[in-house]
Amino acid sequence: MADIFDRLLKNSGGPIGQHRERAHGYFAFPKLEGEIGNRMKFRGKEMIVWSLNNYLGLANHPEIRKVDGDAAAQFGLALPMGARMMSGNSVHHEQLERELATFEGKEDAILFNFGYQGMVSLIDVLCSRHDVIVYDAESHACIIDGLRLHVGHSYVYKHNDIEDLEKQLQRANAIIEKQKAGGVLVITEGVFGMAGDQGKLKEIVSLKEKYGFRILLDDAHGFGTLGKTGAGAGEEQGVQDQIDLYFSTFAKSMASIGAFVAGPKAIIDYIRYNIRSQIFAKSLPMPLVMGNLKRLDMLRSQPELKDKLWSNAMKLQKGLKEKGFDIGKTDSVVTPVYMKGGVEEATAMVMDLRENHGIFCSIVVYPVIPKGHIIYRLIPTAVHTDADINATLEAFEATKKKLDAGEYKVAAIPDMAESR
Amino acid sequence: MADIFDRLLKNSGGPIGQHRERAHGYFAFPKLEGEIGNRMKFRGKEMIVWSLNNYLGLANHPEIRKVDGDAAAQFGLALPMGARMMSGNSVHHEQLERELATFEGKEDAILFNFGYQGMVSLIDVLCSRHDVIVYDAESHACIIDGLRLHVGHSYVYKHNDIEDLEKQLQRANAIIEKQKAGGVLVITEGVFGMAGDQGKLKEIVSLKEKYGFRILLDDAHGFGTLGKTGAGAGEEQGVQDQIDLYFSTFAKSMASIGAFVAGPKAIIDYIRYNIRSQIFAKSLPMPLVMGNLKRLDMLRSQPELKDKLWSNAMKLQKGLKEKGFDIGKTDSVVTPVYMKGGVEEATAMVMDLRENHGIFCSIVVYPVIPKGHIIYRLIPTAVHTDADINATLEAFEATKKKLDAGEYKVAAIPDMAESR
Repeated sequence: MADIFDRLLKNSGGPIGQHRERAHGYFAFPKLEGEIGNRMKFRGKEMIVWSLNNYLGLANHPEIRKVDGDAAAQFGLALPMGARMMSGNSVHHEQLERELATFEGKEDAILFNFGYQGMVSLIDVLCSRHDVIVYDAESHACIIDGLRLHVGHSYVYKHNDIEDLEKQLQRANAIIEKQKAGGVLVITEGVFGMAGDQGKLKEIVSLKEKYGFRILLDDAHGFGTLGKTGAGAGEEQGVQDQIDLYFSTFAKSMASIGAFVAGPKAIIDYIRYNIRSQIFAKSLPMPLVMGNLKRLDMLRSQPELKDKLWSNAMKLQKGLKEKGFDIGKTDSVVTPVYMKGGVEEATAMVMDLRENHGIFCSIVVYPVIPKGHIIYRLIPTAVHTDADINATLEAFEATKKKLDAGEYKVAAIPDMAESR
Repeated sequence: MADIFDRLLKNSGGPIGQHRERAHGYFAFPKLEGEIGNRMKFRGKEMIVWSLNNYLGLANHPEIRKVDGDAAAQFGLALPMGARMMSGNSVHHEQLERELATFEGKEDAILFNFGYQGMVSLIDVLCSRHDVIVYDAESHACIIDGLRLHVGHSYVYKHNDIEDLEKQLQRANAIIEKQKAGGVLVITEGVFGMAGDQGKLKEIVSLKEKYGFRILLDDAHGFGTLGKTGAGAGEEQGVQDQIDLYFSTFAKSMASIGAFVAGPKAIIDYIRYNIRSQIFAKSLPMPLVMGNLKRLDMLRSQPELKDKLWSNAMKLQKGLKEKGFDIGKTDSVVTPVYMKGGVEEATAMVMDLRENHGIFCSIVVYPVIPKGHIIYRLIPTAVHTDADINATLEAFEATKKKLDAGEYKVAAIPDMAESR
């Protein structure tokens, strides 16, 4: 008799899990220990860490730590219990929603428990089978999974390609016309998290009059890092009023969990009463709500944190370019470094960076990107120092030399998996 | 030009949202204030609360409150940052997984951020297009939404109807045979949250040999409340070893957020490396992990909490039956009370219960259940007192008399919505 477990076992763990026997605890599921910051411990050794989206350095800011601790002492982590709609509402949840809406220049906002879950369910609640979704090809997994719940048509446009977007909008509108029902939702991102390039929001919204669509923007990496006040990519590009629904997670600049979407009051109210991931899940615990209120307050009132983030990002990006590294088309603080090489070379290089240079950063290889390519992704934050940046530039220069000289090719990869 | 917002606005807010103008803040999104317990404040008035799944009373246990506060002070609410796989792992996350696995008699377990999200994504990661899912008709929304991501076949069987289950298993196996690929996953619940009846696990697992399927059990309401040690419905029915994958949320007995699934090591490892809701979302914050470790410890070591819960549940259920109320087929602590009446009568009755008797409980009406029916759902906990139970029985008796006499029919429902 067939068994659903057979496929899972034969599959050797999937694209990443296939390496788990030797990778677990080192390349996958590593443990960064100590306080969140520019330097943390990995396997007992201090590392300069470039893997955490703690953009503004709020995670461990003393004022934040005080509010986090005090709120948990005051409320405990259980309060409130139940879904918002049934028994899990509070004045603090509502206050955070109001403040987020105001900050984003929208009428209202609704909180979600987690960004991934929020976006998946948001797409589901917004679109009926007659609606057509047009989305950027490099959209995050949470958008892709939301699309999987959509039973109507959806068309992908080439990443940030406005000409192709127009083509897909024409296709979408042809469907709508034929159906005599439905509308078009364009979904894109403020900052694409891998390459660091901003979505071309200005160009996209300029098509609204001609094609009559609504825009849902996922600004996970733009929130708090872009725009004069930190309100994100819409503000940065001067088109925030044209963004119908503005979404962000709290997992990046806010150094917390949760997410929100802001938009017109009637639409947010509809979402509030119908979004399944919130109706059927417990409310966000109170200390996280209090912690997010404080984070939002600091994000708004201390622009020097964003300035420091950008100054660090510019130093890092300038330094990498000067040393001949290809950092692609980033126009955000996200700093990718593109190299050529196989999985084994990338693996050996990461180990060299960690073991001999004390640099901890994330890497992306095949099958996530095409074979033969390696992307390092560095996330600068407001708490990195010039010494961190200089040491990292030197380490990258040294390891790139070895890579180019083919020195990483011979190295067999030892078993780095921790005993479990 | 058509507009996706049109449908949302015309729709008057959906099945529940259509009442929001007069219901918001009272019937929907009410605010229960003060410490979680048997009595809380609603609109400034003390209520006996029967709406929270704080089964064991852990939410506000002094030992729990101490750990919650201490952990937030020690770690802050930001740690760790990033997804488990990339940068968000810790020894404490792993310890909680090991302890949950041991408690459930399984080889391994993996944490999820929220129950709803965990189950949706779990079904997605387990099943390929060739696999066939057979599930109980009264499955929770998180199971239904997981099924929506499944591109292969799925068959529903009548709630707890073993004869119909066999029919669906035969259909499922016919498909598998035809495809010469795939397997069958049966999904059911330990305790059905509305009616309180247990899934017929004993009967279901007895079909495993004949039909060769795997079982995924959602035991949200059974975990901590059923079985000798509190390990849930599998233990209660003596078939825990036959449950292939045991899932529960922390949102009920554990009075927290998060969830887990426990099962064979190789399968859990596959899930760990492939489940999209965890790979693409931040790890559960450390204080919640520490708080859940403490909750699990108390759940295991203080069986008197479960005894007290059951003693309260039995008093409440016995009292309701003696007063002639129909509590259906519950064989768990979940206590539904079935009445007949329209939405307006139910509304007036809830108001009477709250305003004149100080009883806060949840109610389910059309369109969630058929027209003309009302279900009250009472959730007893270990922190309720005899006085709470007696006052509630008296209040139900008094309001039922009014309902039967048609007194709630005339009452126009005033606008109870709070100004926003």
